[in-house]
Amino acid sequence: MTTHRDQVLALMFDAQTALVRAFEECDGESRFTPHAWERPGGGDGWARILEGGAVFERAGVNVSAVHGEQVPAAITDRQDIDPGAGFFATGLSTVLHPRNPWVPAFHANFRYFEVGEGREVWWFGGGADLTPSYGFEEDARHLHRTLKDCCDTFDPDFYARAKKSCDEYFYLPHREETRGVGGIFFDRMHPEGPDGWERAYGFVERGLNSLVPAYLPIVRQRVQTVYGERERQWQLLRRGRYAEFNLIHDRGTRFGLESRGNTEAVLMALPPLASWSFGVVPRPGSEEERLAEFLRPRDWLTA
Amino acid sequence: MTTHRDQVLALMFDAQTALVRAFEECDGESRFTPHAWERPGGGDGWARILEGGAVFERAGVNVSAVHGEQVPAAITDRQDIDPGAGFFATGLSTVLHPRNPWVPAFHANFRYFEVGEGREVWWFGGGADLTPSYGFEEDARHLHRTLKDCCDTFDPDFYARAKKSCDEYFYLPHREETRGVGGIFFDRMHPEGPDGWERAYGFVERGLNSLVPAYLPIVRQRVQTVYGERERQWQLLRRGRYAEFNLIHDRGTRFGLESRGNTEAVLMALPPLASWSFGVVPRPGSEEERLAEFLRPRDWLTA
Repeated sequence: MTTHRDQVLALMFDAQTALVRAFEECDGESRFTPHAWERPGGGDGWARILEGGAVFERAGVNVSAVHGEQVPAAITDRQDIDPGAGFFATGLSTVLHPRNPWVPAFHANFRYFEVGEGREVWWFGGGADLTPSYGFEEDARHLHRTLKDCCDTFDPDFYARAKKSCDEYFYLPHREETRGVGGIFFDRMHPEGPDGWERAYGFVERGLNSLVPAYLPIVRQRVQTVYGERERQWQLLRRGRYAEFNLIHDRGTRFGLESRGNTEAVLMALPPLASWSFGVVPRPGSEEERLAEFLRPRDWLTA
Repeated sequence: MTTHRDQVLALMFDAQTALVRAFEECDGESRFTPHAWERPGGGDGWARILEGGAVFERAGVNVSAVHGEQVPAAITDRQDIDPGAGFFATGLSTVLHPRNPWVPAFHANFRYFEVGEGREVWWFGGGADLTPSYGFEEDARHLHRTLKDCCDTFDPDFYARAKKSCDEYFYLPHREETRGVGGIFFDRMHPEGPDGWERAYGFVERGLNSLVPAYLPIVRQRVQTVYGERERQWQLLRRGRYAEFNLIHDRGTRFGLESRGNTEAVLMALPPLASWSFGVVPRPGSEEERLAEFLRPRDWLTA
């Protein structure tokens, strides 16, 4: 009999294959390299990384399946869970850092947890979000529209909640700004009822399938835009913010590092190159200055 | 009457002036720019930043003096302190990221805290450490020798403890390596006895005075070494590790961000440019490969 976890893991592998194929086709030049790793405490990971591509300066599509007796703190501190109950976690993460500063970075993650002896406690989580260095309303609208259409297949109220969670989650308090224009973010998805698991699984499957149509049209729209040193410098500074978020706040990063996953795979989300400079203030009226206002959360579908 | 805190703040300003002068002289081209800031909750900061220098790609010497009613969590979680007792904190931080990959980065910090109504609880803290991209035993030895000579003026057992604390503090568990070759690190320095405060103050003063002789001879020794793209790439990767440490682990960064200090001043320690690449393995026998072994903590004075 196929277990739930086997079913989810197979879904993650299928999605990895599809995403790698689509991203390689979009890049047109570079290929993903596979790197398998084993977790000493139990589990495996299958990272696929593209570096130095024509379109993507760095991209990763990682799948992992880890388990153990000690539930990582990143989980226990958020639910009334016995730390010694044992856990199983599998997920797919993808992050793309394009070379062209006019093309936004993209991140998505879908994950599945089981906790406890009989694994009676389970939930799905996931999300997708867009991080531009330069703001285009039509890009944000396209992303949110695609994600909302997917969410509506699960529950007509779901998008609004997941959109709000995303804005709240991808927020840097010390910068008083969101990481990007958001998207969706959800955790602890555990629908009640006899078909609860199937409903959640079906949604995650459709969510994975929506990533390519949500992101690649935006890449194709922007990738031919000419850029120079000024745009590149701005992109590197914005990537610094991206690194700040991931290293200070991101729960997935924390879970990965705490559960002693593969450090390189966990940190593949970090940008290939990032910079920090003191107190940079964009020129008044410039595209760069416009970004701060652009990143303020709003209803993108009616914007 | 001069209060203890006034005395420490004056010391920090004097040290800032001296460090800025010495670093500018060493750089030979660029100057530090001053940036004053105010903390909404109470306090001020005086950052001085040099960017794009001939020797230093980025350098900062910051002084701050902050106070408030709510003791920041970065302090309370480490001592039995009433969170509402009120606090005063002043300190000097300096970080130098040289341009030439053969020149190590350097960081030092000295700080003073008072907690409670009558400020009866006080302590000093501080440290200094060296982060090379390429290992030279004589550099590590020079740093440790200079710091030990300073520590010995306080207590003959002090260096050994502070050296060990430094190795333990500047450690990245997910990389299983130290940030650099260490130095000294101490916290909660509160000598007993009627002259306890003066003894601690005197040590901190001598510690601040030892920073230039501890670091600049190393800079002058290495700064003429020719480097190319290979060394630069390696330096950028190592700086990625530096950013990881500061954003994930550093308590000073956490304190600064939590106490709502000036974000740009707190993050001036981050490198001007840093990179991440998947699973880089240095060529066997290369200088780059040697670094991992070089970073393993040891007694540098007899090495």
